[in-house]
Amino acid sequence: MAKEITSRAEDYSQWYNDIILKAGLADYSAVRGCMVIKPYGFALWEKMRDALDKMFKDTGHVNAYFPLFIPKSFFSREASHVEGFAKECAVVTHYRLKNDVNGGGIVVDPDAKLEEELIVRPTSETIIWDTYKSWIQSYRDLPILINQWANVVRWEMRTRLFLRTAEFLWQEGHTAHATKKEAIDETLQILNVYAELAENYMALPVVKGIKTESERFAGAEDTYCIEALMQDGKALQAGTSHFLGQNFAKAFDVKFSDKNNNLDYVWATSWGVSTRLIGALVMAHSDDDGLILPPKIAPLQVVIIPIYKGDEQLGVITAKVNEIVRQLKDLGISVKYDDSDNSRPGWKFAEYEMKGVPVRVAIGARDLANNVAEVARRDTKEKMSVNLNGIAFYIQQLLEEIQLHIYNKAKKYREEYTTKANTWEEFVDILDNKTGFVSAHWDGTAETEEKIKELTKATIRCIPLNNPEENGKCILTGSPSKQRVLFARAY
Amino acid sequence: MAKEITSRAEDYSQWYNDIILKAGLADYSAVRGCMVIKPYGFALWEKMRDALDKMFKDTGHVNAYFPLFIPKSFFSREASHVEGFAKECAVVTHYRLKNDVNGGGIVVDPDAKLEEELIVRPTSETIIWDTYKSWIQSYRDLPILINQWANVVRWEMRTRLFLRTAEFLWQEGHTAHATKKEAIDETLQILNVYAELAENYMALPVVKGIKTESERFAGAEDTYCIEALMQDGKALQAGTSHFLGQNFAKAFDVKFSDKNNNLDYVWATSWGVSTRLIGALVMAHSDDDGLILPPKIAPLQVVIIPIYKGDEQLGVITAKVNEIVRQLKDLGISVKYDDSDNSRPGWKFAEYEMKGVPVRVAIGARDLANNVAEVARRDTKEKMSVNLNGIAFYIQQLLEEIQLHIYNKAKKYREEYTTKANTWEEFVDILDNKTGFVSAHWDGTAETEEKIKELTKATIRCIPLNNPEENGKCILTGSPSKQRVLFARAY
Repeated sequence: MAKEITSRAEDYSQWYNDIILKAGLADYSAVRGCMVIKPYGFALWEKMRDALDKMFKDTGHVNAYFPLFIPKSFFSREASHVEGFAKECAVVTHYRLKNDVNGGGIVVDPDAKLEEELIVRPTSETIIWDTYKSWIQSYRDLPILINQWANVVRWEMRTRLFLRTAEFLWQEGHTAHATKKEAIDETLQILNVYAELAENYMALPVVKGIKTESERFAGAEDTYCIEALMQDGKALQAGTSHFLGQNFAKAFDVKFSDKNNNLDYVWATSWGVSTRLIGALVMAHSDDDGLILPPKIAPLQVVIIPIYKGDEQLGVITAKVNEIVRQLKDLGISVKYDDSDNSRPGWKFAEYEMKGVPVRVAIGARDLANNVAEVARRDTKEKMSVNLNGIAFYIQQLLEEIQLHIYNKAKKYREEYTTKANTWEEFVDILDNKTGFVSAHWDGTAETEEKIKELTKATIRCIPLNNPEENGKCILTGSPSKQRVLFARAY
Repeated sequence: MAKEITSRAEDYSQWYNDIILKAGLADYSAVRGCMVIKPYGFALWEKMRDALDKMFKDTGHVNAYFPLFIPKSFFSREASHVEGFAKECAVVTHYRLKNDVNGGGIVVDPDAKLEEELIVRPTSETIIWDTYKSWIQSYRDLPILINQWANVVRWEMRTRLFLRTAEFLWQEGHTAHATKKEAIDETLQILNVYAELAENYMALPVVKGIKTESERFAGAEDTYCIEALMQDGKALQAGTSHFLGQNFAKAFDVKFSDKNNNLDYVWATSWGVSTRLIGALVMAHSDDDGLILPPKIAPLQVVIIPIYKGDEQLGVITAKVNEIVRQLKDLGISVKYDDSDNSRPGWKFAEYEMKGVPVRVAIGARDLANNVAEVARRDTKEKMSVNLNGIAFYIQQLLEEIQLHIYNKAKKYREEYTTKANTWEEFVDILDNKTGFVSAHWDGTAETEEKIKELTKATIRCIPLNNPEENGKCILTGSPSKQRVLFARAY
């Protein structure tokens, strides 16, 4: 099984696809650009979703649900938003099919044309702010701290499983505030929640930063982001949190009266992460044998496999395993005992390695005689002989160690692959040969940013938060610069 | 506040809408036929969803996610399915907008016409069975027990909040089996899960039964259902579970080889419940003062309101309330202390009555001096003076009692409003004057069923499971009949 994966060295892109398909995370569908999220992939998404949902609720947010469809005209209301989102999208023009009178099967009924076309939401600022208009009159109606879990559609010409699909699942938060400060604080609070999800659950170190003007969300005053580094040295934007100023309030005429009865436009934020995170997870941690999952979000944390000859041996092993399973479950650890007889232990080992189950326990008759089991960790492939007394606690600690180790490994990699460049030659050389993040001076203009992108395909991923001031010269133009920014080629 | 609700006696329909809007469950949106599910309504949906999701998982099901769009041609594959579902639907015909060269804003780009139109899923049997084709080769790949939580769209001309909207949220299960028996068992297992959700969580008594041929799901061999009775004497279908036979396997050519290497088509089921259940919940239990919610699914179970003059009294009350809040939370009870100073206690009482919070606790300075609080239950409006020692346990028991009482009340109502009719005159009289379920003999033909519907607007809701055999004569034609069936006018 494991042999069927293309190695990273041979073809990184194919390696990625192989893992997604063979670990059972997702599958292609009959609809161009849309994928099927398979049960194992969805269980992973549920773990991430639940962790995030809890953090949202702990910070005072509530969930709601807004319509899938948005009237076409709504996109024209916010000038820059229309440029960013109303172009490549799914357009509903009719609401009925009928039988073709000429026997051509079912066809679109021309009589059922919509007066105004509906767009399948690519993001929901417009429909939500149209709704907030009727919910907000006074400061007493603020803040509104709403999130929704939803599907969205952006018509993509070149798609990749999880990373870029026409339809994807995400959450989008849309908050409304009485003051600018409160809205900015909210934007940053969510950025921290995203970083917490990435680092503490996904074991994915991220750089928190702010986007340049050209990389901003269409309609935002500031876009904050978390950026992660993949094993091929490319960056991936893992989440964004936008301070929208009063742009959408103005576009949809949403005003509130403050305590002194003065009318003002409402301040807004929006923020989102998507199933794209699963792509990031795969690319950050996995190896040539398959998926590697951090225990905190692994759908299955431990698998136990019996090694036996005949039903009698199996019976004795199973009796002992049932004890261990109960002990593990009491500790809140998810565990599966795979005693299926339709495949050999070696095949099972490879299968669970492919699926990234963090800990594998194998128990044979001789192990049992010695009161031990073989415990193998997926991340390092180390195998340990562990005494059965206290094995559950051993595994509990091991899971924590694995979580930390995966994070530390990714962090070390990122540190190794974050390089300062001081000349254009160095800059290009790093991008072409070493890859990773390049920390370099930039003159602050959109023209230079665009030119660098044209020349190298590298973009400014972000200006890191708490970036130290440092006088220097722009890598391309030599103009004065006050700080380094983070460049990379990116997904 | 409560005064603003239309009474049931005055206008049942308006009463229903008033509650939905004023309790903050949902709102209209700018998109025809689509609603916004507001945070309180969504929290209610989350409670129902979580209970159901747990029951699905406990019975071996897993979640997955399939595409929103379905190619038009897929609907023609299953002959009866196309009649049922491919008519009133949202049709995506284009994938791009552009700026009108004549300055008319953004318009649909005629160059971006899809080769084949995509239908926004009204239900997902077709896209899922097209996928299962590549997942199923052998009996080892079976059963597949997949559920998905998703939004679906059915273009409705006349819509009502929760009960009938163009877009709604639901879950749809799609299972694949090696044998007919296993598929039928699954269909019935899920019917029982649905009845459990309705009765034990929503406090909604339901009749489990089977649909007549004319009321069957398009593409099913048998449709099982749970039917509930609303306070206006109309029935509401609260969930359906379909035995699909081999219809979709044949339509999408899904075969498996059994243990003896014989090829056969796969057996299927599908089943779903939707946000429509929230409409049923409102109509079954609520009164002229607002919502009444069963404690097990109430987003908020207890509200505590201080009655005070001045900050000093408030401080003393708050200190005591904090204790009670901690005790309640330790018992797993959700509670809110509403000490906001922008509205008076009377206004708060009415507000939480409107929202159906099961238990209200009011504490004033004099209560505190007597070491008591006033506990009011929402369902019966009874008020009790309760000693503060042990008040948390008192409330815990009270919540259980309320849950049971709401169920028993609804069950008693249903029993009172389930009437046997033996003549056509009785039948019509009951439907027109008493309303409710009418148990009557029917000759078993679709013609008679249709004729009865034309004459009375009543439909056969179901043939109850374990229906006793009883010789009789059809209420309309006088032809012989072997059992009574359940008629009603329905939502």
